[in-house]
Amino acid sequence: MDIVANTLLAAGASPAMIHSLAEIPDFTPQAQALCVNVGTLSPSWVPAMKSAAELMVKLGKPWVLDPVAAGASGFRLNACLALVGVKPTVIRGNGSEIIALSRASLVKGVDSAHGSMDALEAAKSLARASGSIVAVSGAVDVVTDGNRVVAAHNGVPMMQKITATGCAVTALIAAFVALDPSHPLEATASALSVFCIAGELGMDLAKGPASLRMHLIDSLYGLDEAALLSRVRITDL
Amino acid sequence: MDIVANTLLAAGASPAMIHSLAEIPDFTPQAQALCVNVGTLSPSWVPAMKSAAELMVKLGKPWVLDPVAAGASGFRLNACLALVGVKPTVIRGNGSEIIALSRASLVKGVDSAHGSMDALEAAKSLARASGSIVAVSGAVDVVTDGNRVVAAHNGVPMMQKITATGCAVTALIAAFVALDPSHPLEATASALSVFCIAGELGMDLAKGPASLRMHLIDSLYGLDEAALLSRVRITDL
Amino acid sequence: MDIVANTLLAAGASPAMIHSLAEIPDFTPQAQALCVNVGTLSPSWVPAMKSAAELMVKLGKPWVLDPVAAGASGFRLNACLALVGVKPTVIRGNGSEIIALSRASLVKGVDSAHGSMDALEAAKSLARASGSIVAVSGAVDVVTDGNRVVAAHNGVPMMQKITATGCAVTALIAAFVALDPSHPLEATASALSVFCIAGELGMDLAKGPASLRMHLIDSLYGLDEAALLSRVRITDL
Repeated sequence: MDIVANTLLAAGASPAMIHSLAEIPDFTPQAQALCVNVGTLSPSWVPAMKSAAELMVKLGKPWVLDPVAAGASGFRLNACLALVGVKPTVIRGNGSEIIALSRASLVKGVDSAHGSMDALEAAKSLARASGSIVAVSGAVDVVTDGNRVVAAHNGVPMMQKITATGCAVTALIAAFVALDPSHPLEATASALSVFCIAGELGMDLAKGPASLRMHLIDSLYGLDEAALLSRVRITDL
Repeated sequence: MDIVANTLLAAGASPAMIHSLAEIPDFTPQAQALCVNVGTLSPSWVPAMKSAAELMVKLGKPWVLDPVAAGASGFRLNACLALVGVKPTVIRGNGSEIIALSRASLVKGVDSAHGSMDALEAAKSLARASGSIVAVSGAVDVVTDGNRVVAAHNGVPMMQKITATGCAVTALIAAFVALDPSHPLEATASALSVFCIAGELGMDLAKGPASLRMHLIDSLYGLDEAALLSRVRITDL
Repeated sequence: MDIVANTLLAAGASPAMIHSLAEIPDFTPQAQALCVNVGTLSPSWVPAMKSAAELMVKLGKPWVLDPVAAGASGFRLNACLALVGVKPTVIRGNGSEIIALSRASLVKGVDSAHGSMDALEAAKSLARASGSIVAVSGAVDVVTDGNRVVAAHNGVPMMQKITATGCAVTALIAAFVALDPSHPLEATASALSVFCIAGELGMDLAKGPASLRMHLIDSLYGLDEAALLSRVRITDL
């Protein structure tokens, strides 16, 4: 939660962290976007997550799912699948998470019989099955609505040595989608680029993952349009 | 919890973080002060919070309440009101939180009929209704017992771009009140000043909110009397 | 969890943080080592901790216990004793924690009648009673199997001003024991030395506890064999 909240603050958003089902009816309508992260999942959190997501959908507001370690247990996979059923605007995960979700979503389909699905194909299948924009983080990030595929090429490998950078960028996607809810694919690709460019700028000053973490957040806070435009590399695939 | 515990350690205090009701009877008597923070509130935590606060009152020791986002939901407001009923030594919040608590505490009184209560008036009303010292964080921090009002003028705006700086200073207030329990207003104003002066010193070295966070804690650790005395700006209002 | 996960990532390990009993059967077999930390203990976590530890023992894999504040409450001490009963490969605590655990483990024995047990004697007694390697952190760290005692002399005092450095080194012990499960005493002493040498290297650049935290993790990430070998001080007692 720490790096997630600090990322959002640095980007100009206003984070609030809510766990309890009892707060969903009052609090959720005040939010412009919701980020559901199943990181250290407890059974009691699942109803709160579902309830908040359902309320956002009912209110016509965006919500974003981070299916952390979706394939690590049946409990976690089932919780993620139930959340995918609530139609997230965007799902962002790493390759393994998206492949796990995609296979489970398509368990009765053709693709699931094959072990060879790569992350991009999994993302496209999951996007078509769920109606969500699906983003896969990696050396190159890809974002797809099931047909169109956009690749975001920024970032540095050392970002993977900082815990919860994936969680942080998922929350940033929620903030970007809140500002442009009718273009979730573009908003998602932009959020991934901005976060990764902050990582590149931070890497110029970093001596290791802990100083990278600091310089990344500082760079995100100080990011100006010129720096962004000179570095951004988003392409259609 | 991370920045809260590191703030306390940097200031020379010994933090311990306890969640479970089962530990209150054994652990609470070992503490010189208690800080209750309703940040990511869960229903099961409320009885533990109340029980710990009640035990501190019974033992004649100070306890401090941080009513995080008190107005964000009925559940949260009710939990905060129940805690205010256990007579905190100090309540510290931002303007919105103190206004929300004050209005709800006075719901049958005159002031609650007016929408125009500002944070200072809310703080004074809440202090009189609760018997607590009330501190409101803002561009200028104010501390009141309902009659006397003290303003602490230190700090830098970027501290608001770091998650949980408010939580950290509330915990620091608890540590200061533990050292001088018979002067909670002065101890509260001192803690706010010391934390904000550490922020000013940190700001001289910071390039953004993440490096400010680091330099603030380092400055708090290294703070000496001369630096404090040359910078402190506390006034009576 | 933040500094623990970042420590493991910096050292080249792959951390995952699991709370729920529902995930133990699926997830635990995927881990090469388990670290159980009772930090902010809740009653509902104890069965998950026990279940995960029992499964690791059944699978013949190492697990490490951090009995945080073991003596602070009866609830916490009983939870720790129940976990000691599941035969941790290593137990790492500070002097107070190891003394509390050792006394409680030996409550019907001779030693428990004496109040004078020091941390080293407590560690040896606990190691003999539990069959675990026991490590005591302090100005000099000691590691014992009940007979042999090894002392690790690296480290800087300011590391104690950073919250959860003890938790971080316990997790690092788990990672080291995973790589050399048949030499848990040596692996434990090595992990303590490596973490403390990273602290020494970080201290050369630090201006306070928050920058030490950053430089420690950076140094751990960048540590090379030459720096290690020139600094390591492990002796037999």
